[in-house]
Amino acid sequence: MFLDTLEASARRVNSCLCVGLDINWLEMSAYDTDSSSLLDFAKSLVQSTSQHACVFKFNHAFFAAQGLEEQLARIIAYVKESYPDTPVILDAKRGDIGNTAERYAEEAFIRYNADAVTVNPYLGWDSVEPFLRYRDKGVILLCRTSNEDSGWIQEAGKDHPVYLMVAERVHQEENPNLLLVVGATQLEALSQVRQIAPSTTLLVPGIGAQGGDLTAVLQRARRSDGLGVIINCSRSIIAHPDTDDYFFQVAESAAEYAQLMSIQ
Amino acid sequence: MFLDTLEASARRVNSCLCVGLDINWLEMSAYDTDSSSLLDFAKSLVQSTSQHACVFKFNHAFFAAQGLEEQLARIIAYVKESYPDTPVILDAKRGDIGNTAERYAEEAFIRYNADAVTVNPYLGWDSVEPFLRYRDKGVILLCRTSNEDSGWIQEAGKDHPVYLMVAERVHQEENPNLLLVVGATQLEALSQVRQIAPSTTLLVPGIGAQGGDLTAVLQRARRSDGLGVIINCSRSIIAHPDTDDYFFQVAESAAEYAQLMSIQ
Repeated sequence: MFLDTLEASARRVNSCLCVGLDINWLEMSAYDTDSSSLLDFAKSLVQSTSQHACVFKFNHAFFAAQGLEEQLARIIAYVKESYPDTPVILDAKRGDIGNTAERYAEEAFIRYNADAVTVNPYLGWDSVEPFLRYRDKGVILLCRTSNEDSGWIQEAGKDHPVYLMVAERVHQEENPNLLLVVGATQLEALSQVRQIAPSTTLLVPGIGAQGGDLTAVLQRARRSDGLGVIINCSRSIIAHPDTDDYFFQVAESAAEYAQLMSIQ
Repeated sequence: MFLDTLEASARRVNSCLCVGLDINWLEMSAYDTDSSSLLDFAKSLVQSTSQHACVFKFNHAFFAAQGLEEQLARIIAYVKESYPDTPVILDAKRGDIGNTAERYAEEAFIRYNADAVTVNPYLGWDSVEPFLRYRDKGVILLCRTSNEDSGWIQEAGKDHPVYLMVAERVHQEENPNLLLVVGATQLEALSQVRQIAPSTTLLVPGIGAQGGDLTAVLQRARRSDGLGVIINCSRSIIAHPDTDDYFFQVAESAAEYAQLMSIQ
């Protein structure tokens, strides 16, 4: 069960830090002086942050843009072999219908062997169901995102905005493996979602580079047991200025963020 | 310009038929008796339908589920080399923010060299813009989809439903390379969208296997110049019963659908 693994992992590292490996290969290659391959570079990032991450999140787009899907599969396989207690999220924001949605679920859960995948709800609940059929896997639905124009559709409906409809439906499902994405820049939405879906675990991006306020997020999103939220940091951990001790800096940043997000 | 190529192509083949190559490799391999590779099989499908298709649509999911992205890139390259006047849509339904959306645009337009890509609007207009920066490429926004639960979010907002907000915004942009997806099962929505966005070209899935009514769709979606709509057929053309003359059957089906969708 994804959520059990995730919560055990958060307790073990005493943090709700999700390390987002949004590796921009073009930028990163500047630091990649000692390692002979992209795979080694990614492995070093995983090693440098593994003590502090309760979960790793891989961003499909950064691999797909350059035809590096096979490398993505290998990196995930490496994490699952070397750090079997740390789950892996494939951040792919898939959304399609019928047999196409089935293929995307297959991509995330079989081809990449991810423990959870991000899914876009715009096409309706029947577009989410093919992912939910993998009952031990996590499905993380976009609810309220952190970007500037996110309210356009997500807040449509005024008194009964779309993002709260999504949160309500997820709450009704009573499936602990069904999570919601709520951006750190949306503090009011975080409070609302937490009220409507009190037990649902939230994945919160938007801390760091996007300017979200960590303390305010934790106050609104964290459940009384200290869990119920995982907070993603990507660029603020892995995009360091060009330094000789890059992986050391990455480890330091991950440690700092992890401590700020400690559970106990 | 994507739309110019698309319209010239539709006039040339005298049809608004979009051939959707949603190739289910597991099913299809049964027919793949003579060809030694998946690539040859896909090429034969393209050859069998090229006289009748104004545009080809490739479904990313079917390739991604089995790690066949490189084959997808090669098939698209083959179409562009052999049929340079027939544009290619990558049906990937991407949707993400900021630099991630930029990577997905790169995936569609550079990595795969597609002429257009399908995009999900749930994350807001700023999530669409990175795709629009490729000004000669087509961006096909999901508006009202053909599946059963599609109204959940797409019709939220009652008097001013989300799908009409999307159509209005696209109309306001006055960008002929910006298209909308409206499912063939949504006849009322087709009429509404055509009214709100009178000049926008619509991509209509849901004919055939999903049960949409072709005549009713054409009545509602086609502009007075005979253009303004492309109608996708996938399974109804390429998923034939196990026959010895599979590619002949595919060509026959494509010819029949193309004629039903003739422009003049």
